[in-house]
Amino acid sequence: MSSIDMIHAAADRLRGHARRTPLLNSPFLDELAGRRLFVKPECLQHTGSFKFRGAWSAVSALDEDTRTRGILAFSSGNHAQGIAMAATKHGAPSVIIMPSDAPKMKIDNTRALGAEVVLYDRGSESREQIGERLRQERGLTLIKPYDEPQVIAGQGTTGLEIAEQAAEHGVTQGDVLVCCGGGGLTSGIALALEEHAPDLRPRPCEPMGFDDVTRSLASGQIEQNPATSGNICDAILTPSPGEITFPIMYERCGPGLAVTEDEALHAMALAFSRLKIVLEPGGAVALAAALFRQDQIEGEAVIAVASGGNVDADIFRTALERFA
Amino acid sequence: MSSIDMIHAAADRLRGHARRTPLLNSPFLDELAGRRLFVKPECLQHTGSFKFRGAWSAVSALDEDTRTRGILAFSSGNHAQGIAMAATKHGAPSVIIMPSDAPKMKIDNTRALGAEVVLYDRGSESREQIGERLRQERGLTLIKPYDEPQVIAGQGTTGLEIAEQAAEHGVTQGDVLVCCGGGGLTSGIALALEEHAPDLRPRPCEPMGFDDVTRSLASGQIEQNPATSGNICDAILTPSPGEITFPIMYERCGPGLAVTEDEALHAMALAFSRLKIVLEPGGAVALAAALFRQDQIEGEAVIAVASGGNVDADIFRTALERFA
Repeated sequence: MSSIDMIHAAADRLRGHARRTPLLNSPFLDELAGRRLFVKPECLQHTGSFKFRGAWSAVSALDEDTRTRGILAFSSGNHAQGIAMAATKHGAPSVIIMPSDAPKMKIDNTRALGAEVVLYDRGSESREQIGERLRQERGLTLIKPYDEPQVIAGQGTTGLEIAEQAAEHGVTQGDVLVCCGGGGLTSGIALALEEHAPDLRPRPCEPMGFDDVTRSLASGQIEQNPATSGNICDAILTPSPGEITFPIMYERCGPGLAVTEDEALHAMALAFSRLKIVLEPGGAVALAAALFRQDQIEGEAVIAVASGGNVDADIFRTALERFA
Repeated sequence: MSSIDMIHAAADRLRGHARRTPLLNSPFLDELAGRRLFVKPECLQHTGSFKFRGAWSAVSALDEDTRTRGILAFSSGNHAQGIAMAATKHGAPSVIIMPSDAPKMKIDNTRALGAEVVLYDRGSESREQIGERLRQERGLTLIKPYDEPQVIAGQGTTGLEIAEQAAEHGVTQGDVLVCCGGGGLTSGIALALEEHAPDLRPRPCEPMGFDDVTRSLASGQIEQNPATSGNICDAILTPSPGEITFPIMYERCGPGLAVTEDEALHAMALAFSRLKIVLEPGGAVALAAALFRQDQIEGEAVIAVASGGNVDADIFRTALERFA
């Protein structure tokens, strides 16, 4: 269902709306990584993460009547903000169903970006039931966070930019490390690289103990995580790779890499001091893998996608205190 | 001596070497600023500040024989790192004269970028004498941090990009706020805007109590600061505007703006949470002016140049602790 043509079409729709993020590097990080290291800072994307690309792609792909009735999403995090902003900029209403115990800042931000936020109690209510009722009552269209072809196509535009920007630096071969939750970004990038930079090899990066994608790629079937909480990399803790994203990754990705929470925090501190960007823990796992899993990486250059920067100030301060 | 033609020529020499930084914005900052607010994040430039542009411009403008004999600079900060990296990438030696009490990290970074660092005692030695001796002995060429036409031309390339990027957002009129020390960046941007975006008005921004450029623009002659230390915005504490930069600014700039140390720290915290970039205090004064001097700013849009991000972790943590 997903294809390079869909990614090209998404790139056309995103032009002038999503940011073309730069490709950053630093001689200090090159030395630490033992090879040339490039970082694609999607924390600089609108709403602070790559999720805006997929959201814009999916919202802009709807016909106008459908879009005008409104968009529905379940999310407590980056997908919520991406959908809210993309819908609002299209003049369309959006309803985001969030757990009532989600961080107040994330609820406030999602509302401020123009979404109606519907809170539910995780213990006693089913978000799916609430969503289904709203969908029927208002004719809303659900946009899923990763297992959705137009979302994958939007995330894939990151891969188009990586292929171009890496070539400008003379890099056409090497590993492309991607922070991976459900696999929307990884599979989109994999499709884009297959066409435009076939010797750049995409590889998912995950928190240790939540390496469902890494294990799924190894076993050849969808594996589950034992839990979806209990790790600082909250943005990328998903139950398992998606039914659409997994086959795409299985055909195109190299082995996954897993890093510890401390390694993610350490990478955040190095991104602060050497690249002057703000990363959230889940957005720093690919950089952490580039720095701390050198022996598992091949090639003279490596590219790490820094997927997001929506981190609370106290966690960021902790990272600096311990590792800067 | 400085001209738009020199800026265009510098842009040609910088292409593929300096980064074209993006133009960032956030609906949250627009609301705080009371108008559309755009930020040009030169903290994302090589070596963490715009200084790399001027350094590259000046080093690349030398004939090869001169360059090969080596470059000399006096600096304890961002100019040192810019010169070191630009010289090293040209295969040329560089000697940076730094006070022996400069922060160890800055000395280490400058060395790691390939420069020879010569330390002097601020109390008992004259850096000018040491520099003059080295210049004669080794045939080094001194590159001054701001009062130097090719440096101004390099900084002016920031203005070329602002003119283009602002137009992409439909902005051709409004104030362009620039963090200002000796005026190299401000005067370069002023020359570029005069040619390419004549209704964008450059305005220097300074720390309160160190507003020599603001006072000089008001009086029509070069005014001095009473001191060059004692403020958190260390990167932009200079004794007075330059003899070359002042006339350029006097003819082209709107009135200066001054902000407090707390306002600079507050702007750093907002840049962290809303733009995901790391600013140093001196690099945040223009953003602070956009946010906290709204009544002194004209137009429906404002552009703030965030000039650098070389900040110690403890100062950054303080900014987050107090304002995030």
